[in-house]
Amino acid sequence: MRQDHLITATQLSRDDIEAVLDRARAVADDPAAYADRHAGSVLALCFFEPSTRTRMSFDSAAKRLGIDTIDMGDVDSSSVSKGESLSDTVRVIEGYADALVLRHPSEGAATLAAENVSVPVVNAGDGAGQHPSQTLLDLHTIRENHGLDDLTVGIMGDLKYGRTVHSLASALTNFDANQHFISPESLRLPRSVRFDLHETGAQVREHTDLEGVLPKLDVLYVTRIQKERFPDENEYHRVAGEYQIDADTLADAPDDLSVMHPLPRVDEIAPDVDDTDHARYFEQAHNGIPVRMALLDTLLENAEAAEGMEVDR
Amino acid sequence: MRQDHLITATQLSRDDIEAVLDRARAVADDPAAYADRHAGSVLALCFFEPSTRTRMSFDSAAKRLGIDTIDMGDVDSSSVSKGESLSDTVRVIEGYADALVLRHPSEGAATLAAENVSVPVVNAGDGAGQHPSQTLLDLHTIRENHGLDDLTVGIMGDLKYGRTVHSLASALTNFDANQHFISPESLRLPRSVRFDLHETGAQVREHTDLEGVLPKLDVLYVTRIQKERFPDENEYHRVAGEYQIDADTLADAPDDLSVMHPLPRVDEIAPDVDDTDHARYFEQAHNGIPVRMALLDTLLENAEAAEGMEVDR
Amino acid sequence: MRQDHLITATQLSRDDIEAVLDRARAVADDPAAYADRHAGSVLALCFFEPSTRTRMSFDSAAKRLGIDTIDMGDVDSSSVSKGESLSDTVRVIEGYADALVLRHPSEGAATLAAENVSVPVVNAGDGAGQHPSQTLLDLHTIRENHGLDDLTVGIMGDLKYGRTVHSLASALTNFDANQHFISPESLRLPRSVRFDLHETGAQVREHTDLEGVLPKLDVLYVTRIQKERFPDENEYHRVAGEYQIDADTLADAPDDLSVMHPLPRVDEIAPDVDDTDHARYFEQAHNGIPVRMALLDTLLENAEAAEGMEVDR
Repeated sequence: MRQDHLITATQLSRDDIEAVLDRARAVADDPAAYADRHAGSVLALCFFEPSTRTRMSFDSAAKRLGIDTIDMGDVDSSSVSKGESLSDTVRVIEGYADALVLRHPSEGAATLAAENVSVPVVNAGDGAGQHPSQTLLDLHTIRENHGLDDLTVGIMGDLKYGRTVHSLASALTNFDANQHFISPESLRLPRSVRFDLHETGAQVREHTDLEGVLPKLDVLYVTRIQKERFPDENEYHRVAGEYQIDADTLADAPDDLSVMHPLPRVDEIAPDVDDTDHARYFEQAHNGIPVRMALLDTLLENAEAAEGMEVDR
Repeated sequence: MRQDHLITATQLSRDDIEAVLDRARAVADDPAAYADRHAGSVLALCFFEPSTRTRMSFDSAAKRLGIDTIDMGDVDSSSVSKGESLSDTVRVIEGYADALVLRHPSEGAATLAAENVSVPVVNAGDGAGQHPSQTLLDLHTIRENHGLDDLTVGIMGDLKYGRTVHSLASALTNFDANQHFISPESLRLPRSVRFDLHETGAQVREHTDLEGVLPKLDVLYVTRIQKERFPDENEYHRVAGEYQIDADTLADAPDDLSVMHPLPRVDEIAPDVDDTDHARYFEQAHNGIPVRMALLDTLLENAEAAEGMEVDR
Repeated sequence: MRQDHLITATQLSRDDIEAVLDRARAVADDPAAYADRHAGSVLALCFFEPSTRTRMSFDSAAKRLGIDTIDMGDVDSSSVSKGESLSDTVRVIEGYADALVLRHPSEGAATLAAENVSVPVVNAGDGAGQHPSQTLLDLHTIRENHGLDDLTVGIMGDLKYGRTVHSLASALTNFDANQHFISPESLRLPRSVRFDLHETGAQVREHTDLEGVLPKLDVLYVTRIQKERFPDENEYHRVAGEYQIDADTLADAPDDLSVMHPLPRVDEIAPDVDDTDHARYFEQAHNGIPVRMALLDTLLENAEAAEGMEVDR
């Protein structure tokens, strides 16, 4: 990957993705070899929206590479509340750090940040936009369990609003993957996303029901259906109930089916699934560490190489 | 101490306690020898309730062992507010860290966490339950000033609600200690705690007045009487006033009496006590560092040994 | 600088200032030489008021010296909300750390803290009082661009309430500097500050208009005029508009004029100034790192030397 920043999953070619995932595998195999690789570097964690797992995961990944972190803290305690523009904020912070991780409620925030600073920017979620490190850890989990060729993936739940889903679907078009989308009619994949997938020639099917497609799947990726999407609470319970799974649901599933979920879950995967061999969602969350280590390592390495070239010029 | 977790003070035998306190003494004598002992390890600080001194104390203790920390941050910015269960939260976080420190408003939270993860869990307070590292630093302070044999300890103030007090009283039954409890009738030690103490054969007396017992004491452990416990504010002021101490109160105390307090204090110890030789409460707070260093060192050492055994199998 | 604490800019002599700025220059020239200088030390960040850039800047500066940090967190999650006094809070925290950085809403808080602890205290802002590390980074920015001799500085905007301005004006009296103050009548420098400046024999002029003085300036230091200062919003817009600058305003400025601002800015410097050679405000913010590294390095060095002397005695 010869990137300066990581803004979207769609910026990544198949080669880019495989390079990061190869490195993630190397990191997972021998973490000690990476422990001091970037000692003396500082990473700024700039979360303009609350986050626990993504922030802690980047924080831990950084530290396991020897990188120190500085945290912007809550937005209401920050200069933002004094009316400062995002570009001013990141231009100040770039002087304090060797790279920035940014989460922001506005789509396009990460792109704006990357245009304004000369250190690497990692998009950790920009509104309805992208969350590419999540996509990479999803792909890593699939790859370590099934490989990325000749793959059949089902994605179920709220397919309309979930940025995780759109990003993963788009990234999977780089690989030889059949994609099945399972959702209520009202939460179908948006037309624009379907259009983009068809444009790439992706093999895509839509379903309202899991039953028929379950036996074919290598991976079932479940997402949460949010109550806020429904005007009527009864309607929500009726619909959401149809897309919840438990150990019984999985009785007819292939033995090596992997059940994934970006977490946090509420009711959509029953606790009895945790004890089956299908459960991969905690492993998936834990994969955030080697994947984000590989990502930070790559971006800092590229930044150092670019600086070296400037010096040599 | 061959423990995997530290959940309660009552889980600790006299030998366990003395092993940790011996190590705390070694740490205090030569902190530099411990500076890099766990370099490359990561500790997750998971405080589901606000805390300044306990969190900062664990944070500093970790760093003085070379351990990096990652902080869950405030609960309202966390996944918890999205309805995630505690067991899911800790199962995710165990993938980011080599050990967890947990504070939670619900009694039993630390036990639940420990059952769900395979890394060491330290209970930093679970509701009305336990706060065992506080007990250990209390014992360390007593031991360094008086030893733990042939000891007479007075515990004064709110004995009904204070988890610190119940935990300390229970731990002292491991040693040759006379315990005197001084409180208003309405804030006596709960019947269940008294029962447990008597069961162990502990030498215990209750008093409503400090005066008679003060001359016998090696240690006077003061706790705060909280306004919220009283329906009537006048009644609160009358009662609380009787259990406040100042330099005059201590005129008849033994020369080597140690006054302790878990802090923060409000009015229960007057500032003029700070300048007497009796004041041990800041020393006691500072003892949090060597004691928590000894604790983290022990638990990580045990975890590494356990992992080594699994590998060898 | 043979200081134990840094409480005010006025405590610093010309020699003190130049010693810190010399060290800041050395740090900026060869940061790697300082990377592990204070490995094993811990700095407590105690911000009783929200702060993004100052806190992150100290945090990064510490880490670039190998110092670990522990953060007090938000005040409403802290012991302070349980009614603890500031002196108790800092006396506890001094046991956790080798130095303290303190921001507090009350003037004099840093002095009080310094009187109560035996580790170095750095004042990071105490109400309407001082913010001396800001002054040092302002001076460093001026020095690196113009030197500190034969200097003409214009300070514009809200000169009545800005502690940054008072502190900088006072520090500049140590050097051969002409100072011009440009503000609306209602936001003139307070009489007491003018008096103090005259006492030192400083060369000081006041103006209501930038135009006449601009061609003489080496430095134009702009500050924000806050809406809250005006009873009438129209009046605010009329006044504030006269003290905003853009690229046009600077057409007649000397080629090497430096425009500075403590940030965050809102409207007082238009974005088109960013692309001119005059813009120094981001460089100024970034100078927080070497200056605060120099400061922490100096104070910890002094503390170690003092401890050495006590031991040798």
